[in-house]
Amino acid sequence: MAHDSGAAVTPKFSIADPPAGGEPYLLTPGPLTTSAGVKRAMLKDWGSWDGDFRAMTADLRRRLLAIAGDKDGTYDCVPLQGSGTFVVEAMLGSFLPPDGKALVLVNGAYGQRTVQTLGYLDRSYWVLDKGDYLPPRGAEVAAALDADPTITHVVLVHCETSSGILNPLQEIAEVVAAKGRKLLIDSMSAFGALPLDPQTVPYAAMVSSANKCIEGVPGFGFVIADKTEIEAAKGRSHSLSLDIHAQWAAMEKTGQWRFTPPTHVVAAFLQALREHEAEGGVAGRGARYAANCDTLVAGMRALGFETLLKDGWLSPIIVTFFNPAHPKFDFNRFYELLKAKGFIIYPGKLTVVDSFRIGCIGRLDTAVMHQLVVAVGEALNEMGVDDASPPSSAINERAKLVA
Amino acid sequence: MAHDSGAAVTPKFSIADPPAGGEPYLLTPGPLTTSAGVKRAMLKDWGSWDGDFRAMTADLRRRLLAIAGDKDGTYDCVPLQGSGTFVVEAMLGSFLPPDGKALVLVNGAYGQRTVQTLGYLDRSYWVLDKGDYLPPRGAEVAAALDADPTITHVVLVHCETSSGILNPLQEIAEVVAAKGRKLLIDSMSAFGALPLDPQTVPYAAMVSSANKCIEGVPGFGFVIADKTEIEAAKGRSHSLSLDIHAQWAAMEKTGQWRFTPPTHVVAAFLQALREHEAEGGVAGRGARYAANCDTLVAGMRALGFETLLKDGWLSPIIVTFFNPAHPKFDFNRFYELLKAKGFIIYPGKLTVVDSFRIGCIGRLDTAVMHQLVVAVGEALNEMGVDDASPPSSAINERAKLVA
Ligand SMILES: Cc1ncc(COP(=O)(O)O)c(C=O)c1O
Ligand SMILES: Cc1ncc(COP(=O)(O)O)c(C=O)c1O
Repeated sequence: MAHDSGAAVTPKFSIADPPAGGEPYLLTPGPLTTSAGVKRAMLKDWGSWDGDFRAMTADLRRRLLAIAGDKDGTYDCVPLQGSGTFVVEAMLGSFLPPDGKALVLVNGAYGQRTVQTLGYLDRSYWVLDKGDYLPPRGAEVAAALDADPTITHVVLVHCETSSGILNPLQEIAEVVAAKGRKLLIDSMSAFGALPLDPQTVPYAAMVSSANKCIEGVPGFGFVIADKTEIEAAKGRSHSLSLDIHAQWAAMEKTGQWRFTPPTHVVAAFLQALREHEAEGGVAGRGARYAANCDTLVAGMRALGFETLLKDGWLSPIIVTFFNPAHPKFDFNRFYELLKAKGFIIYPGKLTVVDSFRIGCIGRLDTAVMHQLVVAVGEALNEMGVDDASPPSSAINERAKLVA
Repeated sequence: MAHDSGAAVTPKFSIADPPAGGEPYLLTPGPLTTSAGVKRAMLKDWGSWDGDFRAMTADLRRRLLAIAGDKDGTYDCVPLQGSGTFVVEAMLGSFLPPDGKALVLVNGAYGQRTVQTLGYLDRSYWVLDKGDYLPPRGAEVAAALDADPTITHVVLVHCETSSGILNPLQEIAEVVAAKGRKLLIDSMSAFGALPLDPQTVPYAAMVSSANKCIEGVPGFGFVIADKTEIEAAKGRSHSLSLDIHAQWAAMEKTGQWRFTPPTHVVAAFLQALREHEAEGGVAGRGARYAANCDTLVAGMRALGFETLLKDGWLSPIIVTFFNPAHPKFDFNRFYELLKAKGFIIYPGKLTVVDSFRIGCIGRLDTAVMHQLVVAVGEALNEMGVDDASPPSSAINERAKLVA
């Protein structure tokens, strides 16, 4: 991803246009700003047993498999009620056998949550913990797999949303395949905007959810998994509600969700899938987000902010910025000032240095990102912060990260 | 509940008005027909971390506790992502200790699902199975509890939606309390329309979901539980996602849901809660449903249909009717004919005799129920069914049920 710092920078002190409809833009990694069409798709009630709704479920599964690039029917798609965490847990409980062992690659909150989930499931695992944001590399994964031949699965977060780092998926997938292990991917915040092709990144299963890069509203997640894995998962789940095989088998047999689906959220998601297709699929969606990110990063750097990550590791999903060292910078005030100007941003999740995050996903374009940068400049002025550069501890921290 | 068969019966062969907005009414026990205001509440995106949304979550919990009649802060309310089944499973996994033992009162599909869930959870249990629709009675529960002093909990379905039977909650609650055991209630399809007062029906925990008698859209459920039980549940859940204590502790601490909430569904539910209050709370809602039920039952009986249940066991939630014995009656054709006329009904769930179900809940009134009865009459005509009476096997079946 080229992040062109030459993008036009808006003047610091002009007034940003109010956001459409008077409600703030969500610069957050989901729930995010959705299109009016997606929201309007929720204005109708659907009977979940009815043929019309069953057809919608079939269409949803078919479209997700197409986005996943399932060429030859190797994979199947199983939607599941709940948030993204529910579907991560369902994946782990369904595809990791009780006598298996996982290597979990951790560099942030979502990798840590996977570890926590394995604790609940009473599965054996090793953790390769890289701290707040350093990427796991192929060579160290290879070493870990060599060191313990009983490891059966590797669990990787595609884009670790807590820092925004784009983990080196392909490099790791190649190692996992070469060593004959299976790969489980949490692609929550990447699927639909970043390539994840089973031809080049062979995986056993991956998960994502309705309210990320497909730009639906929250209410369910989905698994895309090798059918052989789904069949082998029969009777394995620790949970009735989170049993992927049972959900799949019922859907295959009746076309229905096993339990009441979030019908309105499903209808919204179908509209979001149509808009995703109209935008040019993964490539089109990814290009818009990359442009958003480029505009954001260039604008923020021009204001004196610094990103946690070096350019090569930035994802076009969400960007972490260091808090300014300036004594008058106060995150809560900054948040409220930006909200009043029509932008909702996100707090940071780092343990070592103070930071905040700005998402690039959702129904946003570079014009919005320009307005946001203007608003950030105004907010700094209003707080009396005339220097947005981070403390030297932050710069030292970043120095650990190779380009 | 008085079910007055003297309600006016509409003529058999007039034409029903098309339903409002051109979309069919859902005569189903959730997802159901919601108000336009409830659906319109989904036209806005909310940041789940933002203070505005946290205030919505607090309001939702407070309103549900008020409906539950929590007078002195004994109980707390914990909403949870997923469908109703998820929150039943969460209740069982959180409140039934691994060394506890449950007595499950089963008279239909939802009681059976509780048994299945306990199998996943590896808990000990006894089943008192009354078949398709016979009610469990206080005396037999007392006998079962006397027979095994190691039983710690009784699990009861308030309204067993698979037949529509209103189980004798109070009679059973009294026995459970007298024998010093704890009561867990699946009040999915009853909460908000039928009384469930902890003063008269003491319970440890109960569950329901967004898309039943409160008339929201599907996407989450909620537990109302004694705070002592919630505190005791710490570290007990088999599942990270379904851990009631962890969900509660996070909500108490931060005001947020632990994982991404279905923001639009939550906004719709808040509107539904306001409309519930405006209608006069549980009493007002229950009265409308009872009137719907009376109109439906009277009209259907006038057409020659018979209900599975005798009047004393009918709930104002959903009513099971026997399929006519007439050789030209075909449920699928009946369903499609009614759908074309603007009404979506529900298939039956009985194992012994063929039946279908019609719900009385959702944004429906007696005018709609009258129209429905007219449409049913038309559909019979179109199928060439001139006698809607059930086979004698169905009548024999019903004879088992005391009044
Ligand atoms: C990478 C990743 N995994 C898991 C999750 C958890 O999803 P949810 O909050 O919907 O439970 C998220 C949420 O942002 C995420 O970004
Ligand atoms: C009594 C009862 N319990 C449990 C459920 C399961 O709820 P869901 O379908 O939302 O999982 C239902 C659904 O109708 C119900 O009526």
